[in-house]
Amino acid sequence: MKKVIDLSLYLVTDSELMSTPTLEEAVEQAIIGGCTVVQLREKTASSREFYNTALSVKRVTDKYNVPLIINDRLDIAMAADADGLHLGQSDLPISAARRIFGDDKIIGISVSTFSEAKQAQAEGADYLGVGAMYKTGTKTDAADVTMDELKHIRAAVNIPIVVIGGINKTTLPAFYGTNIDGISVVSAIIAQPDITSAAAELKRMVKNLR
Amino acid sequence: MKKVIDLSLYLVTDSELMSTPTLEEAVEQAIIGGCTVVQLREKTASSREFYNTALSVKRVTDKYNVPLIINDRLDIAMAADADGLHLGQSDLPISAARRIFGDDKIIGISVSTFSEAKQAQAEGADYLGVGAMYKTGTKTDAADVTMDELKHIRAAVNIPIVVIGGINKTTLPAFYGTNIDGISVVSAIIAQPDITSAAAELKRMVKNLR
Repeated sequence: MKKVIDLSLYLVTDSELMSTPTLEEAVEQAIIGGCTVVQLREKTASSREFYNTALSVKRVTDKYNVPLIINDRLDIAMAADADGLHLGQSDLPISAARRIFGDDKIIGISVSTFSEAKQAQAEGADYLGVGAMYKTGTKTDAADVTMDELKHIRAAVNIPIVVIGGINKTTLPAFYGTNIDGISVVSAIIAQPDITSAAAELKRMVKNLR
Repeated sequence: MKKVIDLSLYLVTDSELMSTPTLEEAVEQAIIGGCTVVQLREKTASSREFYNTALSVKRVTDKYNVPLIINDRLDIAMAADADGLHLGQSDLPISAARRIFGDDKIIGISVSTFSEAKQAQAEGADYLGVGAMYKTGTKTDAADVTMDELKHIRAAVNIPIVVIGGINKTTLPAFYGTNIDGISVVSAIIAQPDITSAAAELKRMVKNLR
């Protein structure tokens, strides 16, 4: 049966931005601070490197019983027995991924428009990553989503929504009361000198989203 | 049941080198000339682009009942229902790929040393791509394999072997009588002005390998 996952503080990794010597340490410190789900994102690694990193990060997430989601690569997600897969609009279609990955696994997708959001729900996505809400250094190609568009999407779909792109302790209060399910964060956690404290501070704040 | 495949004239695609407007045309002309198996290799495409290309090339290979093998990406191979997967030394381990892809599918691997060849056979590879035999513009990172090393590998493994790297009508006669199963070719077919004739000429020559 599919796991019910808490998306409230959703960490996306970036091996080039982290403040710790290893990704495993960064992930562990973020989980201790309160991250509820971890997405492993590796855009330049070889398949073997991505696979090995997934196995070793999974030892950390398993230790804390936090779900691990793999960005883009369904084969890596399956080989590492991850809990889920996060797709972008230029990755495999949800239908193809679902057929292979199975109904018990989580499949999320990034959307930046109302029509992408509606389509993703219709195709069986388990959650949406909506953004980029703000300009960000980590996803320079992402389109911008306005607060009105976010509210429009929130009203139109019933699957969980996390916002992505430039979310940090300064921008987060703008989402209070928007009834979204969580925030997806890269540098506001992983690039901070004290990852655990940064995660803990955001964790206290996300209670105000609903 | 696993297909028995004829590896004698093994085309590897390269979207940047082909002499035709579309990859589908290049593949069709190569098959008409006598290519017996096609490996789709896309190192810069997005997952969606790779998937769409795999579906459209598979319509061509299916039309001629020629096996389609996907380079590196097990997820693309599964999503497109390809016949096989070709791994490099920095791709997924054979054991992980086999567990997911199943026993009925073909898994080949590139090796450049005797120990890699022995290990690949032990791990259940269905065939070896041994090379690079010569310097080549398409795989600049590949190690060189001497003719003595090739003979050493041929004597030590019983799975099929194709040679890769710089194989063309000038270099091919060096492999006459070496008892290998085929040649793997990129530019000597796909970059030629007349792809069908280039493939047909190599097809006549590969009869002398055994």
